[in-house]
Amino acid sequence: MDQLIIGGREFTSRLFVGTGKFSSNELMRKAIIASGTQMVTVAMKRIDMNNAEDDMLVHINQKDVQLLPNTSGVRDAEEAILAAQLSREAFGTNFLKLEIHPDPKYLLPDPVETLKATEALVKMGFVVLPYVQADPVLCKRLEEAGAATVMPLAAPIGTNKGLCTKDLLEIIIEQSNVPVVVDAGLGAPSHAAAAMELGADAVLVNTAIAISPDPEAMALAFKEATIAGRRAYRAGLGAQARHAAASSPLTSFLD
Amino acid sequence: MDQLIIGGREFTSRLFVGTGKFSSNELMRKAIIASGTQMVTVAMKRIDMNNAEDDMLVHINQKDVQLLPNTSGVRDAEEAILAAQLSREAFGTNFLKLEIHPDPKYLLPDPVETLKATEALVKMGFVVLPYVQADPVLCKRLEEAGAATVMPLAAPIGTNKGLCTKDLLEIIIEQSNVPVVVDAGLGAPSHAAAAMELGADAVLVNTAIAISPDPEAMALAFKEATIAGRRAYRAGLGAQARHAAASSPLTSFLD
Amino acid sequence: MDQLIIGGREFTSRLFVGTGKFSSNELMRKAIIASGTQMVTVAMKRIDMNNAEDDMLVHINQKDVQLLPNTSGVRDAEEAILAAQLSREAFGTNFLKLEIHPDPKYLLPDPVETLKATEALVKMGFVVLPYVQADPVLCKRLEEAGAATVMPLAAPIGTNKGLCTKDLLEIIIEQSNVPVVVDAGLGAPSHAAAAMELGADAVLVNTAIAISPDPEAMALAFKEATIAGRRAYRAGLGAQARHAAASSPLTSFLD
Amino acid sequence: MDQLIIGGREFTSRLFVGTGKFSSNELMRKAIIASGTQMVTVAMKRIDMNNAEDDMLVHINQKDVQLLPNTSGVRDAEEAILAAQLSREAFGTNFLKLEIHPDPKYLLPDPVETLKATEALVKMGFVVLPYVQADPVLCKRLEEAGAATVMPLAAPIGTNKGLCTKDLLEIIIEQSNVPVVVDAGLGAPSHAAAAMELGADAVLVNTAIAISPDPEAMALAFKEATIAGRRAYRAGLGAQARHAAASSPLTSFLD
Repeated sequence: MDQLIIGGREFTSRLFVGTGKFSSNELMRKAIIASGTQMVTVAMKRIDMNNAEDDMLVHINQKDVQLLPNTSGVRDAEEAILAAQLSREAFGTNFLKLEIHPDPKYLLPDPVETLKATEALVKMGFVVLPYVQADPVLCKRLEEAGAATVMPLAAPIGTNKGLCTKDLLEIIIEQSNVPVVVDAGLGAPSHAAAAMELGADAVLVNTAIAISPDPEAMALAFKEATIAGRRAYRAGLGAQARHAAASSPLTSFLD
Repeated sequence: MDQLIIGGREFTSRLFVGTGKFSSNELMRKAIIASGTQMVTVAMKRIDMNNAEDDMLVHINQKDVQLLPNTSGVRDAEEAILAAQLSREAFGTNFLKLEIHPDPKYLLPDPVETLKATEALVKMGFVVLPYVQADPVLCKRLEEAGAATVMPLAAPIGTNKGLCTKDLLEIIIEQSNVPVVVDAGLGAPSHAAAAMELGADAVLVNTAIAISPDPEAMALAFKEATIAGRRAYRAGLGAQARHAAASSPLTSFLD
Repeated sequence: MDQLIIGGREFTSRLFVGTGKFSSNELMRKAIIASGTQMVTVAMKRIDMNNAEDDMLVHINQKDVQLLPNTSGVRDAEEAILAAQLSREAFGTNFLKLEIHPDPKYLLPDPVETLKATEALVKMGFVVLPYVQADPVLCKRLEEAGAATVMPLAAPIGTNKGLCTKDLLEIIIEQSNVPVVVDAGLGAPSHAAAAMELGADAVLVNTAIAISPDPEAMALAFKEATIAGRRAYRAGLGAQARHAAASSPLTSFLD
Repeated sequence: MDQLIIGGREFTSRLFVGTGKFSSNELMRKAIIASGTQMVTVAMKRIDMNNAEDDMLVHINQKDVQLLPNTSGVRDAEEAILAAQLSREAFGTNFLKLEIHPDPKYLLPDPVETLKATEALVKMGFVVLPYVQADPVLCKRLEEAGAATVMPLAAPIGTNKGLCTKDLLEIIIEQSNVPVVVDAGLGAPSHAAAAMELGADAVLVNTAIAISPDPEAMALAFKEATIAGRRAYRAGLGAQARHAAASSPLTSFLD
């Protein structure tokens, strides 16, 4: 069996989905269903936490979906810990996507604050999925601190550039004892497939689905590509070759 | 409807499959079925043309499969035309994958002989699918000569390197009035998805499936990735961005 | 000795320069001198061929510079041959850069017409330097037809994208018995250096120098980078490695 | 003037050189001279610190060369601080390349320990040049902690892969107020040129020079390429274009 277990829960879908940038909640709902995802992240600050009937939440809470609140917008460990506590109370889940990005332009994660917050939140009983640079040493330290997964970025968020950090992701995947979820920058189903072919355990996609003219179809395409990439990884891919090698025998036709 | 029509026949599968390098005919048969392909190419020289019961052919001739004999091994237009005639007689089809490669090491196609042979074979009633460099001007000339498709290579055959010729494929796809089938060098499902996302009409895969430890699973993975890539192309992909853009609003968490 | 001989003449500079797009003849002249080039190409149609004192020509004809008229704008072999004859008469040189591009948008070369024209022009005594796709089979046929060099493109002209065709250029360089001059698409000195490191015999640069805010400085940068790349090729470059390897011994500091 | 000032000293060369892996001290000495470098890093553990006449040091101490001891081999901030103190005493310089890599296989830097050590060492009066991942947030924090430069890696050390982290380096360069020195993974002069074209302030090269069959020539090639890349950056490079654009006017030849 090809199991993915995070926080004691098994996931059969390896495509995690984000909820920003959709033009309507209804389009978002359709994309979530089409994606087959079982893990949906949502920015806490976007939800009215005093209102369990918040329309966005209603659209996210599909069957089998694990809600993954994220701390997008916090700037350091202290803010992250406060946000996590509010989140647990409001959403009734201890799953947490930890995002700490002091810089409002590129939204890149802070390695030091992320490690510090992970250490604290794990002790507080959270299932912590930290968003980080593709930094192999940091990923090992997060694992040692009790992170449930590591979520290294493929490319700066929202750029759609794909596996810019491929050489480092390979090292992270080779070394990790917790699931590796490739996050940020995956702009096309081929990028998701490529991440899975490398051996990633899952991928998280948001922008590429949300801004497509047809988010529902794009979500399905990412689902298919993620499955294809995982299947290829398990079947075994060939190495790249320097030289051509004929698919057919090299005898000439008229021999 | 998203139709692909070649030689008057409609194809619902956009994954074409080659038959070289499989370790057994039975593994090949299973891979063909798993791939969902409707177009299977086979090197004429590998078939005993006096024996319609050749075991390889029996394994290829699955339901809905169009046999696509190829001229692999011929060195010039003259040999290609002779091979094509033998092929039509033996296999009872006028579909022909035209491959002319004088160099036995890299098996790269000859543009001049390929154009010459295409002109002749079209007049002789063949449905010609020429294998060529990703050369936009040559592709236009083949189209003008009556080629049913053009089949530009992604990378040298057997290298598994993926879309090395991407910048030229984009121009070919933009300019072509016949289907563009990306051939050679696609070493992973993500490569097939990427070709389809560019707007290719189909892809041809052989080595990557045949040499996988599990050809049947790999064939299915290519099927899924090809469908995903086509779906994404039709849904509309976002452009790559220079700057990060938050999936979630940029207000800070504690505002 | 590291000789580059074309048409019986030895060149010590391996940077060829084009003359389009400069904002003034004076800036062009300074760039030519700064580049140290000994081979300068000019579009015949831009020169008043009845006037040997054409101001542009005066600025090109620096010491040691071989004028290389090009046929830019011709659409087939017939036009190319006519243009070549006019060129030889007007400029008094049998050096010729053969460019045949029927498509006015991407200006990509026509392989069939280029081979046909090369065969004819070589018989007429021209020193033919044909501009072509990075097509290894075509390059061999041009060599057999008597081309003095082959000039495969790195990327579509004017795109500044660098070595998009790297995988094919490597094959061309490995197989060629005539000098390989990488042409078109080299947008930065690092691209020129990379082409030389692959083993190219020379590079041709135009747009990247001409459109720089400081063409003279950019020409010098290309000169330096071309020399650096050639020097590195001759000294011997290391292969890329999958794994890190310490520059310093792996014993830990406190051992 | 194009000044590079680090630790109050001005450098006219932007190529820093490492001293590992040379097959002899004499070859190293020749390479250092040929490179024109003014900053040479040496692993402290490789030097006999009780012997100022250590043969390796004698070969490094060329005219105008700033010795840059590095802490290669230390595993955390505590070890780094101890090493730094020993270094200052032995070499009589407060320049320090801070390398903290707990993992002996890939030798990748630890972001948390590196920041901690930088904070301490700056207070102790060291001129700290920390080796780090291409992590823009970490680089800003190191700058705020008083680092004299940041030294983000281009690719895992010793891999010769070039600018794998290009997308992140661009952000670091855009945001940094201290010099950015691209370190590790630069395997060819074209890679050094490309880093300088991005706007890096300097590059550090070791393996590619040391393992070349001709280190002296390779050092000179890196010198030339670094100068070329800097010159091109200052002159202004054109952007990459999607479409071809003729170097010569688009009128056809016979108009």
